[in-house]
Amino acid sequence: MQLGIIGLGRMGGNIARRLMLNGHTTVVYDRDEASRSALAKEGSTAVADLPALVAAMDKPRAVWVMLPAGEPTEETINVLSELLDADDVIIDGGNTFYKDDVRRAQALTAKGLHYVDVGTSGGVWGLERGYCMMIGGEADVVQRLDPLFATLAPGMGSVERTKGRNSADDRAERGYIHAGPAGAGHFVKMIHNGIEYGMMQAFAEGFDILKQKNSENLPVEQRFDLNMADIAEVWRRGSVVSSWLLDLTADALATDPQLDAYSGAVADSGEGRWTIEAAMEQAVPVPVLSSALFARFRSRQKSSYADKMLSAMRFGFGGHKEGPK
Amino acid sequence: MQLGIIGLGRMGGNIARRLMLNGHTTVVYDRDEASRSALAKEGSTAVADLPALVAAMDKPRAVWVMLPAGEPTEETINVLSELLDADDVIIDGGNTFYKDDVRRAQALTAKGLHYVDVGTSGGVWGLERGYCMMIGGEADVVQRLDPLFATLAPGMGSVERTKGRNSADDRAERGYIHAGPAGAGHFVKMIHNGIEYGMMQAFAEGFDILKQKNSENLPVEQRFDLNMADIAEVWRRGSVVSSWLLDLTADALATDPQLDAYSGAVADSGEGRWTIEAAMEQAVPVPVLSSALFARFRSRQKSSYADKMLSAMRFGFGGHKEGPK
Amino acid sequence: MQLGIIGLGRMGGNIARRLMLNGHTTVVYDRDEASRSALAKEGSTAVADLPALVAAMDKPRAVWVMLPAGEPTEETINVLSELLDADDVIIDGGNTFYKDDVRRAQALTAKGLHYVDVGTSGGVWGLERGYCMMIGGEADVVQRLDPLFATLAPGMGSVERTKGRNSADDRAERGYIHAGPAGAGHFVKMIHNGIEYGMMQAFAEGFDILKQKNSENLPVEQRFDLNMADIAEVWRRGSVVSSWLLDLTADALATDPQLDAYSGAVADSGEGRWTIEAAMEQAVPVPVLSSALFARFRSRQKSSYADKMLSAMRFGFGGHKEGPK
Amino acid sequence: MQLGIIGLGRMGGNIARRLMLNGHTTVVYDRDEASRSALAKEGSTAVADLPALVAAMDKPRAVWVMLPAGEPTEETINVLSELLDADDVIIDGGNTFYKDDVRRAQALTAKGLHYVDVGTSGGVWGLERGYCMMIGGEADVVQRLDPLFATLAPGMGSVERTKGRNSADDRAERGYIHAGPAGAGHFVKMIHNGIEYGMMQAFAEGFDILKQKNSENLPVEQRFDLNMADIAEVWRRGSVVSSWLLDLTADALATDPQLDAYSGAVADSGEGRWTIEAAMEQAVPVPVLSSALFARFRSRQKSSYADKMLSAMRFGFGGHKEGPK
Repeated sequence: MQLGIIGLGRMGGNIARRLMLNGHTTVVYDRDEASRSALAKEGSTAVADLPALVAAMDKPRAVWVMLPAGEPTEETINVLSELLDADDVIIDGGNTFYKDDVRRAQALTAKGLHYVDVGTSGGVWGLERGYCMMIGGEADVVQRLDPLFATLAPGMGSVERTKGRNSADDRAERGYIHAGPAGAGHFVKMIHNGIEYGMMQAFAEGFDILKQKNSENLPVEQRFDLNMADIAEVWRRGSVVSSWLLDLTADALATDPQLDAYSGAVADSGEGRWTIEAAMEQAVPVPVLSSALFARFRSRQKSSYADKMLSAMRFGFGGHKEGPK
Repeated sequence: MQLGIIGLGRMGGNIARRLMLNGHTTVVYDRDEASRSALAKEGSTAVADLPALVAAMDKPRAVWVMLPAGEPTEETINVLSELLDADDVIIDGGNTFYKDDVRRAQALTAKGLHYVDVGTSGGVWGLERGYCMMIGGEADVVQRLDPLFATLAPGMGSVERTKGRNSADDRAERGYIHAGPAGAGHFVKMIHNGIEYGMMQAFAEGFDILKQKNSENLPVEQRFDLNMADIAEVWRRGSVVSSWLLDLTADALATDPQLDAYSGAVADSGEGRWTIEAAMEQAVPVPVLSSALFARFRSRQKSSYADKMLSAMRFGFGGHKEGPK
Repeated sequence: MQLGIIGLGRMGGNIARRLMLNGHTTVVYDRDEASRSALAKEGSTAVADLPALVAAMDKPRAVWVMLPAGEPTEETINVLSELLDADDVIIDGGNTFYKDDVRRAQALTAKGLHYVDVGTSGGVWGLERGYCMMIGGEADVVQRLDPLFATLAPGMGSVERTKGRNSADDRAERGYIHAGPAGAGHFVKMIHNGIEYGMMQAFAEGFDILKQKNSENLPVEQRFDLNMADIAEVWRRGSVVSSWLLDLTADALATDPQLDAYSGAVADSGEGRWTIEAAMEQAVPVPVLSSALFARFRSRQKSSYADKMLSAMRFGFGGHKEGPK
Repeated sequence: MQLGIIGLGRMGGNIARRLMLNGHTTVVYDRDEASRSALAKEGSTAVADLPALVAAMDKPRAVWVMLPAGEPTEETINVLSELLDADDVIIDGGNTFYKDDVRRAQALTAKGLHYVDVGTSGGVWGLERGYCMMIGGEADVVQRLDPLFATLAPGMGSVERTKGRNSADDRAERGYIHAGPAGAGHFVKMIHNGIEYGMMQAFAEGFDILKQKNSENLPVEQRFDLNMADIAEVWRRGSVVSSWLLDLTADALATDPQLDAYSGAVADSGEGRWTIEAAMEQAVPVPVLSSALFARFRSRQKSSYADKMLSAMRFGFGGHKEGPK
């Protein structure tokens, strides 16, 4: 099957590669000429602009936009919507806010086009392992694209089957789902990332306690000499916290147990914040997901106005001095 | 009435002063000679050691220990308990963990002595405003000391009376309570401090949002130019968040709206942590009180192992680089 | 000065009353005829619809809309904006989301009208105590309305003056501020409510620990018999947590120490949620403000899907059975 | 190798079985006669009391105590310590608080005995998969017991090896570690459980948002019809949140997507609480681990005093009525 791909960064490029390795054809565009050439050498039809991309494809077309969420994606979809023909499909594979999907789907439907949103997890590992995909859009359109999704997904692999699972639809077991109408794919992916933040923070806090148990700040008789790398390693076998995130933690600790390679200033993307927003719209208490997000905010601050205000109050009622160093 | 006072720091010294200003007599000791002399000039009988203090007092004695919690208090009480006579009272006015009170009361009772724990709030303002006191111990012993407590407490003052209050015991309205047996005083004071942490953090977070709304990090059209000092000031009149902590915040912001005088590294005392421990023993969810404590922990760290671990995982699954600056 | 008031509920009616008690005149409308008649008897000019209200007022008019935020306010302002003349002012005194203020101000400015947003705190107590007001809008328009604000505000009263305060603008000390352009008033009020939630939850958690310390679930030797009403009362005098919220807590506990009058299902209004949203837009960590909000969400649930999922996992790895009762 | 085992519940019995399946011999005791007989039929030497157990074993003995933490374990170890000979080893495989291990090790050392604490994760799955073990004690004693640990552990299995791992000690890769001196084993296991709580709560909150997105409480145009079972299933393949806990979640949702089999009242064991205590001793901020614990506390309450107090304050300042249903 043929797929147009716009945006050949790490994700877009590997999506093209995984498709071509499995017999699909790709027509690709990136504003960076070198990226286009690289894919062309690997078998893609590389084009120099969006009109050329549209011209190079068979109808009905399917064009996967794999760009940063927000303006880059929005503008590209606007331009595409003017170039495409009725019944063509635009796929947004980026990290778009699901309400933008809902809005766009309505606008494109009015033009006779289709819109599919695909939340993907798998990052740099997707080429090799496949992409876990959560898809929103019209059922028949998602079905039309099924050969692409089936290829991009990890497949059943060696993962042990879920007990009692009995569903006519085996796509979930092969690593992709049709979650619902436009927006549902990114909604599920958004919550995935919210959970991811929470799990990461759980490990981070636990290892922080372990690490501080070795600290010279503790009285010597209370101190242990725990081996962070060994602890991560042992938990990978048979423990309740076994997980891919733990595997990655073990990887990092094996060669850098002090984690000196990292500054400790941690970025956050839109999905973590939108997860909290969704929880607030639905009145769902999410103390863990929000705490995980706030820990990232705090990690990027040297000192905060909030903290200074605590000191100011302490000075006010108790004369405690916590001045600048 | 006569009171022995051990420890003439800010709290102990002012307690002696407030008592003497109101007709009581004090016998005082501090290991610092200058502190003793100062009080002697203000009318106290100053003595050079604990045996002299005991010798200088009339029976049954009441000795107020006003020292740092932990070893200094523990050792002094141990020494005192060997010097005092049956029916004498030891008062611990410090920030002692309430379980230590329970233990000590049992030990002292076995020796024929009495033990009273007094949690006091009011800090540097107590001399002028009076001390808010939460008292634990035997009812008749607390009653015996009532003239002292009545003097030290703020009294009814100009505070509007609580609607519907109808209690035979008006001590609470005069600023002190007999909370229960030994330990109950410090238990109530401990929870007071836990609440205090939570309220402080609520203000700190709120003002942090206000402050960041002025920030150059925001797009200019989203920015305001809010005046922190005016906001604190206006809330002092008729708003729901009116409080002494807000008054102190307004004081600080009036002259230092950027709070540049503070480093942002905020200390915490035992009470905040013990509050969380008590909540865990009783299975009470305390998300706000614990969050307030953790914010202080975090305020004292430059970067944390936990944060670095988040970066390490992000690098593992997504290739995101958050290295040292 | 003359003010038009639309919406004569508890807030709108009392605003009219406080103004008239101090020599201002009011033209009022409410869709409920009885409410209008009541105010007419107290001296207002009561009208039967919005055109009549506009007709009854002198130019330039100032009309205070005191309706539920969202559609009722939005629609009324839309209608008014068609009826009013250039240079007239619409004041939104409700709990509007500040971004709606920004949008409306732009739209009304295009029509030659002015828009002022007023966040008010003080609730049912405002008639007697005055309203604490945070005002957004054009400086000269806010100045034009100053006689109204000065009357509605609490004034300096008996509140002790802030130390070191030295500002040419004494409005904050009289209980109202011009916080900035349109939206700034409701923004500051929104944060006020966020802080309020945090403070309330701090008290709630602290008293919950105190209450559970009396519980039969604890071993008898660990139990106290703490008096909730006395504790709230004593903290009102000289303690660090002294506050209006504590006064109200003391009021409630004086007559109902078990709080049996309450179900424990606690509502939340938009401001608490918007505060968290603002914090997320500005990347400010707000663990206390969010925890306070989530506690309210949880308070309204009998059991949650989240909790059931924990049980499901526990059954999966440990065979623990936590089935339905 | 020979091992004495006291306590033949799910854990103790399966430990005996796994050892015997791999050529070790066991001498077992349980106060329940039926449990003893069952093991005897499977090859154990079953004895009727502790003296018989000691008499039936070769020196130096190793006795594994697999009883509930607290009094049952404490008493058994006390009795054993009187029966055993110098150089014998007592192993505590339960969920003991690590400070109790430290204390016991000191006491037993004074008697010439050895003490080893083993934190085990793996629950009901251990017989089949092996037990992930974190071990504390003297290095040479732990070494002496190595044949037992090597058998009980999962072994390297099919788990992909950690990148860059280069350690002379391959025990972690085989599923067990010598974490440090007595107490270190249970300390690491305790933190493991703290992390487990956090991860579980992250999933629980995320799925709760997903579930509520289907809710009739939302306006119909905002609602999706998400399939919980499919979402859990798809995340098992290639997503960042892949984990054993997710596998178990998928198991549960496959047959009971509404989770109607569960009441939502979730128990917590000591380890979750001790983790928070350790964090407080070391001043490590743990917002996620504590939030996860508090969610369990709250899950067991119908309504809380804290929530009622919020309602009481709301009534006080705003006249909002949130009375009992």
